[in-house]
Amino acid sequence: MSLSRGLPLESPICVVMVGLPARGKTYTARKLARYMSWLGYHTRVFNVGNYRRERFGARVAHDFFDPSNPTGMNARKTAALAALDDLKTWFDEGGQIGIYDATNSTKSRRKMVHQALRNNNIEVLFLETVCNDPDVIEANIRESKLSNPDYIGMEPEQAVQDFRARIAHYEQAYEPLDDASLSFIRVSDVSRRVELNRISGFRMGRIVNFVMNLHITPRTIWLTRHGESMANVAGTLGGDPDLSERGKRYAIALSEFVNLHSSEDHLSVWTSTLQRTIQTAKPLNRHCIELRALDEIDAGICDGLTYSQVAEQYPEEFAARTADKLRYRYPRGESYEDVIDRLDPLIIELERQQETVLVVAHQAVLRALYGYFAGRSRSEVPHIDMPLHTIIALTPKAYGCNERRFVLAPSST
Amino acid sequence: MSLSRGLPLESPICVVMVGLPARGKTYTARKLARYMSWLGYHTRVFNVGNYRRERFGARVAHDFFDPSNPTGMNARKTAALAALDDLKTWFDEGGQIGIYDATNSTKSRRKMVHQALRNNNIEVLFLETVCNDPDVIEANIRESKLSNPDYIGMEPEQAVQDFRARIAHYEQAYEPLDDASLSFIRVSDVSRRVELNRISGFRMGRIVNFVMNLHITPRTIWLTRHGESMANVAGTLGGDPDLSERGKRYAIALSEFVNLHSSEDHLSVWTSTLQRTIQTAKPLNRHCIELRALDEIDAGICDGLTYSQVAEQYPEEFAARTADKLRYRYPRGESYEDVIDRLDPLIIELERQQETVLVVAHQAVLRALYGYFAGRSRSEVPHIDMPLHTIIALTPKAYGCNERRFVLAPSST
Repeated sequence: MSLSRGLPLESPICVVMVGLPARGKTYTARKLARYMSWLGYHTRVFNVGNYRRERFGARVAHDFFDPSNPTGMNARKTAALAALDDLKTWFDEGGQIGIYDATNSTKSRRKMVHQALRNNNIEVLFLETVCNDPDVIEANIRESKLSNPDYIGMEPEQAVQDFRARIAHYEQAYEPLDDASLSFIRVSDVSRRVELNRISGFRMGRIVNFVMNLHITPRTIWLTRHGESMANVAGTLGGDPDLSERGKRYAIALSEFVNLHSSEDHLSVWTSTLQRTIQTAKPLNRHCIELRALDEIDAGICDGLTYSQVAEQYPEEFAARTADKLRYRYPRGESYEDVIDRLDPLIIELERQQETVLVVAHQAVLRALYGYFAGRSRSEVPHIDMPLHTIIALTPKAYGCNERRFVLAPSST
Repeated sequence: MSLSRGLPLESPICVVMVGLPARGKTYTARKLARYMSWLGYHTRVFNVGNYRRERFGARVAHDFFDPSNPTGMNARKTAALAALDDLKTWFDEGGQIGIYDATNSTKSRRKMVHQALRNNNIEVLFLETVCNDPDVIEANIRESKLSNPDYIGMEPEQAVQDFRARIAHYEQAYEPLDDASLSFIRVSDVSRRVELNRISGFRMGRIVNFVMNLHITPRTIWLTRHGESMANVAGTLGGDPDLSERGKRYAIALSEFVNLHSSEDHLSVWTSTLQRTIQTAKPLNRHCIELRALDEIDAGICDGLTYSQVAEQYPEEFAARTADKLRYRYPRGESYEDVIDRLDPLIIELERQQETVLVVAHQAVLRALYGYFAGRSRSEVPHIDMPLHTIIALTPKAYGCNERRFVLAPSST
């Protein structure tokens, strides 16, 4: 349930990242931005590093970040202020959740940012990422920093050395968050420890709930529609039909595929409560979790009709849906926005899962889930191609999601 | 969405309270127990103070709690062990979420409790309540401790003095939670600050989300069904009917009542997305938040029928529903359990609200909401009397909810 859309206009929130380099700030900022956008908030990340590179060039050596180097200090402050100015302008133009992605590692810098935002009536939420595990930091440097524009053309080992020296400069001046009057979230050691201070309200609660379920353990999420159903054959909406013969063959092909690609122990299978997904998962012969949240979009009074019958019997509805497929709500049924709302707890649960999950669901529901993982805009969600008899394997990576598709189309005879 | 019921059997969780006296441990334990029970977990609070009073009598003076008094120390340890034994037996018999309500204020005591539970394969979650605001502590002593059986028949001022001395004894030996290997939640200053360590899983996430939204600011929640609808007149289920003439008169009476009893500024009005609640709230002439989560239980294929038509056309469905109204799910519709699941985020939001909220909704939905606040068991929920044209005013108190009912039945002419 989203209370957000219905609530009176709330003041915008700026999430201000805090932390040493290579502690997962940008990872967290981008994931959070994708989630809040998917929930329907106008969200944007402002990365100070990009401003610095645009203005002063990439490929600066580590001594640029030495706090005793006045040239570097001034350049970095100029970049920070430019990003902050753009952020304020963006809020003035209707931005709702801004994310200010920089180290913000000293009290004086945070004070300056806090005042500038409060003067514009923007709520400020600091989000500090702390990591003391050298293996995680090293992996983070190698996975994401080597592809940083600052290191293009440099030998990897030399780049790693330089980045370590850069971190050391920041460590000299780093002051952890420690002001009880501020709203903040401190996430330590990849969510093992989370501290919350002055967190209130629906949106801050969503942010906390999301951030505390993030992890970086590699795993895969498989999405598939049910096999072809009798309603697919007839071209009708909704209902609770059985699988067609072709659909049953897909169910068997799916079970063979899954048993080939996953070990016995580490797979959860989620279906909707409708027969066509339950029947599709059946040949897997595994424990399945049936979730109403995965049920297909409710077509209300149009349930059981074909699209041409809808156009004929309810021409105004048909036109309204065509005009705005995201917001259009079937009379007595749901809109895509409603579907996104009810999938919200499931997204949190999918983020939290460390094992492979196979989701057997329906076109509209999978469009919404896939839209989240692939970072598509809400307006695109209702138009995402989501074919039958195809498995989409998603592997979340540092700054996005790898995707593979397996078409297991059964022959039509 | 409840993933809980569908998941494979999970190990039971014991929430072990930690904190000085009068810091809100019992308040938090009872609220949490009510919430987890409402969500469908077999939940129970084991209060060590009650064991101590049963075995060694109430009305002991503060020096019973002096750590240098061996008689008191032994008696209290005996009580703690007896409660722990009962807790373990209760888990063996199928308990899912146990709450061990005691000060558990030393490391050695927590170590003992932790080991005893882990030996029984019970997950342990420590929940520490910290409060440093003397006004809140004083209010807590006066509101809830004076009615404690330990002080029956004592002058209030004397009781307060004694209780302060009891707290001082505990303060001598108190060791805050500080072991990074344990799962814990530390809530300070009534949720202004929350620390989480090694929190994972769906149920721990629910507990955190609930606890961090608790507050003790007094406020009132008003519940009412929509005014009589044309479907009420016809005796049919579901649909999206308009109000009857009597229903419209109730809407006006409701607006007069609300404007008399609440100030202009501090009232939120929530309705469902169905016409009969929107029309009921209309004369209020206030901004209303329309929430699908408040829509009436979906009667699926029985929507639009009368109960006698259901009995006639679907006799097996009718019998199944009569046999288990909580779990029975209308074909293509919902069960009461489904309704409770979709109301979960709304309960969190109602707990969080500090202002008066007027909820205009439907019979089944209000049964579920009221059942939570009144602490009714899930099995009672589908049978709670929820008459038309009645306002239920709920005022959450330390250990329950005050309730007043206002009947605004419009005349039938």
